[in-house]
Amino acid sequence: MGSNSFGNIFRITTWGESHGKAIGVVIDGCPAGLEFCKEDIQIELALRQPGRNSYTSPRCEKDQADILSGVFEGKTTGTPISIIIFNHDVDSSKYEPIKDLLRPGHANFTYLQKYGIFDYRGGGRASARETACRVAAGAIAKKILLHYKIQLVAYVKEVAGIIMEQMEIEDFISFKKQVLASPVFCPDEQAAKKIMKTIEEMKEEGDSVGGVVELYVQGVPIGLGDPIYEKLEANLAKAMLTLPASKGIEFGAGFMGSKMKGSEHNDAFTVDEQGNVLTKTNHAGGLLGGISNGMPLLLKVAFKPTSSIKKNQQTIDIHKEKQEFNMPEGSRHDPCVALRAVPVVEAMGAIVLVDALLLHRTTRL
Amino acid sequence: MGSNSFGNIFRITTWGESHGKAIGVVIDGCPAGLEFCKEDIQIELALRQPGRNSYTSPRCEKDQADILSGVFEGKTTGTPISIIIFNHDVDSSKYEPIKDLLRPGHANFTYLQKYGIFDYRGGGRASARETACRVAAGAIAKKILLHYKIQLVAYVKEVAGIIMEQMEIEDFISFKKQVLASPVFCPDEQAAKKIMKTIEEMKEEGDSVGGVVELYVQGVPIGLGDPIYEKLEANLAKAMLTLPASKGIEFGAGFMGSKMKGSEHNDAFTVDEQGNVLTKTNHAGGLLGGISNGMPLLLKVAFKPTSSIKKNQQTIDIHKEKQEFNMPEGSRHDPCVALRAVPVVEAMGAIVLVDALLLHRTTRL
Amino acid sequence: MGSNSFGNIFRITTWGESHGKAIGVVIDGCPAGLEFCKEDIQIELALRQPGRNSYTSPRCEKDQADILSGVFEGKTTGTPISIIIFNHDVDSSKYEPIKDLLRPGHANFTYLQKYGIFDYRGGGRASARETACRVAAGAIAKKILLHYKIQLVAYVKEVAGIIMEQMEIEDFISFKKQVLASPVFCPDEQAAKKIMKTIEEMKEEGDSVGGVVELYVQGVPIGLGDPIYEKLEANLAKAMLTLPASKGIEFGAGFMGSKMKGSEHNDAFTVDEQGNVLTKTNHAGGLLGGISNGMPLLLKVAFKPTSSIKKNQQTIDIHKEKQEFNMPEGSRHDPCVALRAVPVVEAMGAIVLVDALLLHRTTRL
Amino acid sequence: MGSNSFGNIFRITTWGESHGKAIGVVIDGCPAGLEFCKEDIQIELALRQPGRNSYTSPRCEKDQADILSGVFEGKTTGTPISIIIFNHDVDSSKYEPIKDLLRPGHANFTYLQKYGIFDYRGGGRASARETACRVAAGAIAKKILLHYKIQLVAYVKEVAGIIMEQMEIEDFISFKKQVLASPVFCPDEQAAKKIMKTIEEMKEEGDSVGGVVELYVQGVPIGLGDPIYEKLEANLAKAMLTLPASKGIEFGAGFMGSKMKGSEHNDAFTVDEQGNVLTKTNHAGGLLGGISNGMPLLLKVAFKPTSSIKKNQQTIDIHKEKQEFNMPEGSRHDPCVALRAVPVVEAMGAIVLVDALLLHRTTRL
Repeated sequence: MGSNSFGNIFRITTWGESHGKAIGVVIDGCPAGLEFCKEDIQIELALRQPGRNSYTSPRCEKDQADILSGVFEGKTTGTPISIIIFNHDVDSSKYEPIKDLLRPGHANFTYLQKYGIFDYRGGGRASARETACRVAAGAIAKKILLHYKIQLVAYVKEVAGIIMEQMEIEDFISFKKQVLASPVFCPDEQAAKKIMKTIEEMKEEGDSVGGVVELYVQGVPIGLGDPIYEKLEANLAKAMLTLPASKGIEFGAGFMGSKMKGSEHNDAFTVDEQGNVLTKTNHAGGLLGGISNGMPLLLKVAFKPTSSIKKNQQTIDIHKEKQEFNMPEGSRHDPCVALRAVPVVEAMGAIVLVDALLLHRTTRL
Repeated sequence: MGSNSFGNIFRITTWGESHGKAIGVVIDGCPAGLEFCKEDIQIELALRQPGRNSYTSPRCEKDQADILSGVFEGKTTGTPISIIIFNHDVDSSKYEPIKDLLRPGHANFTYLQKYGIFDYRGGGRASARETACRVAAGAIAKKILLHYKIQLVAYVKEVAGIIMEQMEIEDFISFKKQVLASPVFCPDEQAAKKIMKTIEEMKEEGDSVGGVVELYVQGVPIGLGDPIYEKLEANLAKAMLTLPASKGIEFGAGFMGSKMKGSEHNDAFTVDEQGNVLTKTNHAGGLLGGISNGMPLLLKVAFKPTSSIKKNQQTIDIHKEKQEFNMPEGSRHDPCVALRAVPVVEAMGAIVLVDALLLHRTTRL
Repeated sequence: MGSNSFGNIFRITTWGESHGKAIGVVIDGCPAGLEFCKEDIQIELALRQPGRNSYTSPRCEKDQADILSGVFEGKTTGTPISIIIFNHDVDSSKYEPIKDLLRPGHANFTYLQKYGIFDYRGGGRASARETACRVAAGAIAKKILLHYKIQLVAYVKEVAGIIMEQMEIEDFISFKKQVLASPVFCPDEQAAKKIMKTIEEMKEEGDSVGGVVELYVQGVPIGLGDPIYEKLEANLAKAMLTLPASKGIEFGAGFMGSKMKGSEHNDAFTVDEQGNVLTKTNHAGGLLGGISNGMPLLLKVAFKPTSSIKKNQQTIDIHKEKQEFNMPEGSRHDPCVALRAVPVVEAMGAIVLVDALLLHRTTRL
Repeated sequence: MGSNSFGNIFRITTWGESHGKAIGVVIDGCPAGLEFCKEDIQIELALRQPGRNSYTSPRCEKDQADILSGVFEGKTTGTPISIIIFNHDVDSSKYEPIKDLLRPGHANFTYLQKYGIFDYRGGGRASARETACRVAAGAIAKKILLHYKIQLVAYVKEVAGIIMEQMEIEDFISFKKQVLASPVFCPDEQAAKKIMKTIEEMKEEGDSVGGVVELYVQGVPIGLGDPIYEKLEANLAKAMLTLPASKGIEFGAGFMGSKMKGSEHNDAFTVDEQGNVLTKTNHAGGLLGGISNGMPLLLKVAFKPTSSIKKNQQTIDIHKEKQEFNMPEGSRHDPCVALRAVPVVEAMGAIVLVDALLLHRTTRL
């Protein structure tokens, strides 16, 4: 089974704690023959990094990924690809004073209850640092998808109730550039400005805000996803709900769609000039019966506000005594975890799609 | 892998088409020694059945489940439990005329593209009829959970924008009775009335509406869920997004939580008089770091409006010619699929929880 | 996981007890588009049946398989194929007197200790009857393989020390006919006669004998099997060691090869007139590094003598008191379980190969 | 799925090529609370190492394992344990001249055909070097088993036809010491001497020999193994047949048992003075119906002679031209791979048993 693995055929296994020696990922089932190198990973990692700009936590991770196996003469060989990122810039001593306190909104309590032991330093295994491994694995997945002309872009749709305008994505490349150009991964400049202002305020207050990340995938061929229990929606939902701080997901019209009538929600089939079957609207988010229908895949992930804030909070300790909780001096503070999740949502989307793509090859005689 | 199976240790495998000879489920990994009989299934199946009352489709399924294996002298033996439900009351001929049309909002197009062949009769494998198997398997799961004092209740939270009042669940049993007493599984009488009225209107119009189902679980012990990729949230999300017509899920404050500040969202830890650790609020929906924290589990599932409506719709056929689409005369019409999903949401929740419960036993030396 | 399932992509799940209502199998992951019908199964089942002739147990199973799902208009649809075989001719009452005795060489003790409950009637889940389900699933697997010109034949290599002559298989079809023509599945007529005589003796004595079944597969393409832990050898070994009474397996020269020198054992590569790479000898049994090398696949499975014999045996009961053990009057007696295993070895080999074949499609970009 | 992973709950994933930067293993599902450190691994690795004495290849691997995650304050935490072993002492250039030749008895041909690319240096992923990772993971598994008083010992039973005397293991510890004291892991001094002599001859001749390794496990509780397809025998068979050069396995009387009568082979049940159920003989090798019966587990694994020999061999190249094959000057030469397999057989046995032990906890209500 492996509770630290994800995927069926294209399968990742991540390991490592925030303040351990290193973190890493093993990618099994990557098709042979893909050109792949360290730089492919670094480009992606750079986007996830805290310290990318002032809107995320200032820790300078300078993550350097190293490929230890599975690539020979610049190409994948079909054997497992092991990627390692050593941990630097860690000072665990400051976590010592809070190790016996139940951190509000945090997993230290549940880990401790479950396992009887918890590596509390920097959040241990429960730290968002684990997601760097997903981004590294996602770099491979995205390269495979690109080979098949499938492209993904994730962006910040909403922060603290500030919602980006609905945008028609006509040119994928220029849209993606717009997203990457924004310090908060939001292609709507007006919304982005407001979001930046809010995040600045949160930093000052020592508080945090939640947000919503949207994923748009172009070029998904018809037929991906395997009913009943390997539906594309189901695996994407699972993938996204493994992300730290994620609390919800919706596809296409999603929760809004539950307020609609069937006659409004049903996307009408039609044919374009090239003879491609498509639908006039895309309330379904590109999925019918859990199988991709050729329309763009569209989903949104909700993130709660970062639980680690700089404000004083009431809590108890492991001896059930009342205590005050304050984050250690000098510990990182991410005012909006949704921002850092953007490249991770993209990575997880890519991993699910590659897996579905490979499995789909086994469908017919 | 098995794309028609769900669960790791407690694992179900469903099979069967809507208009085939039978449908069924094999439950593997059920612990030995549980008292279990056919009646345990029938009680649950009765709730899912269309024709339960006028608010769901009038087809009288009269489903009779038969246990073919895995139970001996009234108790489970640890061997696979095979449950079969024969299909009756099926007239496939009326589906003949629409078999080459792309049904708007329906999976016949994607199935056909994926497999090159589709048993279109009554929706084939894509029919919601498959969920009867989940309910049957869920009956076992719920009985196991009851043994450990874990109880589930699902109910209609919202239909067509009509939202039920927030209710404090003080007495579980009486709340559950209230839910079951409602023809639309909605414990808020005022909302229930409006919902019934809306559904009546839809039936007249030949249209349909979407809705939201909420699941509340009481008595979940601390520690269920296995980070990173077998988080309880992740598996529940996967489970629910395999349901026909489901398009979203959220836990606790969910999407609303993304509009909150950390200082508001963080649930403060405290201790009750019995010395149990609990949180003052439950924005997290009972889950921290993907592990249950002892608070009630709370999630909502969004369902789109039923795609099969009685109105005339524009579409194309498999030869890409424009066509009008009308449901066959006399075919069933479910004005609100969310209603029928209520017992299925409960069943899937139970299946995920039993699986997590069993896996949890392997956590410590 | 599912301990009653086997295979990754082409995955079978069997269920049912010897004296329950029925036994059955669900085949998931069968490619769509294969012509398949009930008769394909019956032909295979007939070979496994006890009562085929006087050399196996006289119970007349008259197994009738029914296909309940997954086949539409004569073709597989990609959805799970459910096959059921109802149990007839069962009289469980005679097992009553021995239910508390530890049957020598039998699984009733270990099942009872493991699960705390055991459906002892006719051996329950531990009965060889379960293998009928494998044969049914194997019928599909063999048809898929035939489509790719891969053909299997299993035969009795040895019984009670009587070893069949080494035969060169030049014409596959006529060799297979020879095997099927033999009442004991042994293509060497001299050996077959001796084996028949021995089995007759065993029947008279009320004793049993062990045997060895060999599997030969022709037409296996190069490249099947996935290192490191999905090697073809590994999965075949697992498959065969799940068979009741099997106690060993060897590939190619096998245990004999451990007595050889490298210079003798290494199969020299060469090229035939059509330009195919092959090896001059086949000590490797068609496998190098766990991957098929294009040569015939060759393996042998050792079966212990049937544990159920008609002789009086000393044992104890569940209260640890000494007792005499005698099989119930009128219970079946299979003097050589290896004979009945022949079609099952073929079936399991086919299932492993189809699974490897499908997985192999995901290997390259 | 993950073809480089093994195990269900206690699950290992290995990665790395012989001449890459490093090799490693991730162990997922290890119970929390086990005391474990680097030295536990080093002790085991030392036994596997070539260069341990003159009877194995002279390469001095000096493997140093490093634990990168999953252990905190000396104890396992329930999170994945990542172990890395860096590769040293590698000179890949000498493999350059043979990279286009089909190596007799070796996997380079099948890898190349399967993936279209092969990291040929030192045998790449197909190298026995991968087994160091299994030994590292096995060190954890053995420590868990020891906690439950389950102990394993593997030893050389046979080399080149020289068979060790049947020995009664009365005192486990002293027997194990005897095995470890032997330069060829053979507790029978007479046989050991002959084996050493034969291996010396092989070294001189530049040839190799095969052998048989036996595994004996004491203290296995009743009830491990999950019918039908997770039988203990089946998983052990799979585990052992993933070992490089292994070509067969047998349990208890194994192939010999196929020559016996049921009345001889059936192990009679009895009770010892402490009231433990046991059998008078152990032809079953400790397993009935795939479930452990409390008797010692006993199995033998056959290894072919090492394919890499120093003699000149005829072969072809990838262009199908005839060529002579000679191992590169200075490349390692292991005259008997069975010797080096001894600690690996022990490790794989331990991994299977831990997995079965954990799964067994989920069996009853």
